[in-house]
Amino acid sequence: MQYELYYWPSIPGRGEFVRLALVEAAAPFVDVARAGEGMSRMMRLLDGEKVERPPFAPPFLRAGTLLIGQTANILLFLGGRHRLAPANEAGRLWTHQLQLTLADLLVEAHDTHHPIAANLYYEDQKREARRRSAGFLDARLPKYLGYFERVLERNPQGDRHLVGARLTYADLSLFQTVAGLNYAFPRAMARAGKRHKRVMALHDRVADRPRIAAYLASERRLAFNEQGIFRHYPELDI
Amino acid sequence: MQYELYYWPSIPGRGEFVRLALVEAAAPFVDVARAGEGMSRMMRLLDGEKVERPPFAPPFLRAGTLLIGQTANILLFLGGRHRLAPANEAGRLWTHQLQLTLADLLVEAHDTHHPIAANLYYEDQKREARRRSAGFLDARLPKYLGYFERVLERNPQGDRHLVGARLTYADLSLFQTVAGLNYAFPRAMARAGKRHKRVMALHDRVADRPRIAAYLASERRLAFNEQGIFRHYPELDI
Repeated sequence: MQYELYYWPSIPGRGEFVRLALVEAAAPFVDVARAGEGMSRMMRLLDGEKVERPPFAPPFLRAGTLLIGQTANILLFLGGRHRLAPANEAGRLWTHQLQLTLADLLVEAHDTHHPIAANLYYEDQKREARRRSAGFLDARLPKYLGYFERVLERNPQGDRHLVGARLTYADLSLFQTVAGLNYAFPRAMARAGKRHKRVMALHDRVADRPRIAAYLASERRLAFNEQGIFRHYPELDI
Repeated sequence: MQYELYYWPSIPGRGEFVRLALVEAAAPFVDVARAGEGMSRMMRLLDGEKVERPPFAPPFLRAGTLLIGQTANILLFLGGRHRLAPANEAGRLWTHQLQLTLADLLVEAHDTHHPIAANLYYEDQKREARRRSAGFLDARLPKYLGYFERVLERNPQGDRHLVGARLTYADLSLFQTVAGLNYAFPRAMARAGKRHKRVMALHDRVADRPRIAAYLASERRLAFNEQGIFRHYPELDI
């Protein structure tokens, strides 16, 4: 079976968390909205009047007859199908819990440049963005990074993975989150990296996995940019 | 088995979504932080150095040997245990997808009064809160309410439930979300109610369920207040 991934074609965004899981699982998928008439197919699933279980927003994944929305929910599904999460209930819930915490961080990272409204330009909320970013870099970023550092440190199976002794989708998502933060806030992350070496080492190890490395070097990997969730505005960095 | 729920004792917040599921399931639970030395027990699980799988923040639930964090994750677990979600994979994922969409709405509702930083006072971001609220009430609230209205309308088993023909935790959470929005934005919601009658009817039906009605009338139900996620600041309403 070939999966169909639906996501905005010009940004890595939330779609990238799903892509990384599909790539690592070597699961065949089409990135629908990035080719041909794909965008209109995506919009019909979002706005069409006959979709029985419509997604609220991209990304969503078609898997046979299933249409699954919400990034963490898609990963919950893929984790079970492709051994990207433990099979037992405790491990499955713990992996999902970490993913949901990364999802919270993602919203906060986005809101650093859009604290007032997602549908206004950055330029219309630049002053507020500076205040929000300062608080994010001062209080929230260290809290989140410290948390994941602690999770790695306390993993009884070793600090190479967030959960147990094998890679899970939470590791892939932590990689992508660190990559995005490195792009958006290079100065703050250079400093934070020194205090969160396990998190940074995990990022580097994921980037070196054969399938992920090949994918990152390919044209399929979309670059971070200033339309996405992680944006590099030097004035928002420390 | 008795569950242990850990959440801040003075606000309904995210803990309330878990409480409603436990109440509807008639599952015995202790609200740990609301009695005796409970707060320090909660803080030890959050900050203690020996917790192998620490939660990032409340709420979290102890269920036997499991310690489960993240509201939507807790509900995923309880949904399976207490028939508050379909047993089949498609229905289980769909229910969780709706819950995660409600979680997104919850963050946006919170950020109407705290657009700059959660650790600053409302008074220090009042001007920004007005701008953010205006955008929320103008664009985001109708989008979310319209979405859930559509989900109810398209449910092939009828518009009394979000999923299938039985109550799920997503219905309970939609009830709580509407209750919070009614408290925070009574004028905007009075207007929105006219266009989203199925959502409002679901809210009323959930409130009338015997166990929920008894709970809402009891002292266990915490009132919305200006320390919580949903706050009533008249200047932020339409």
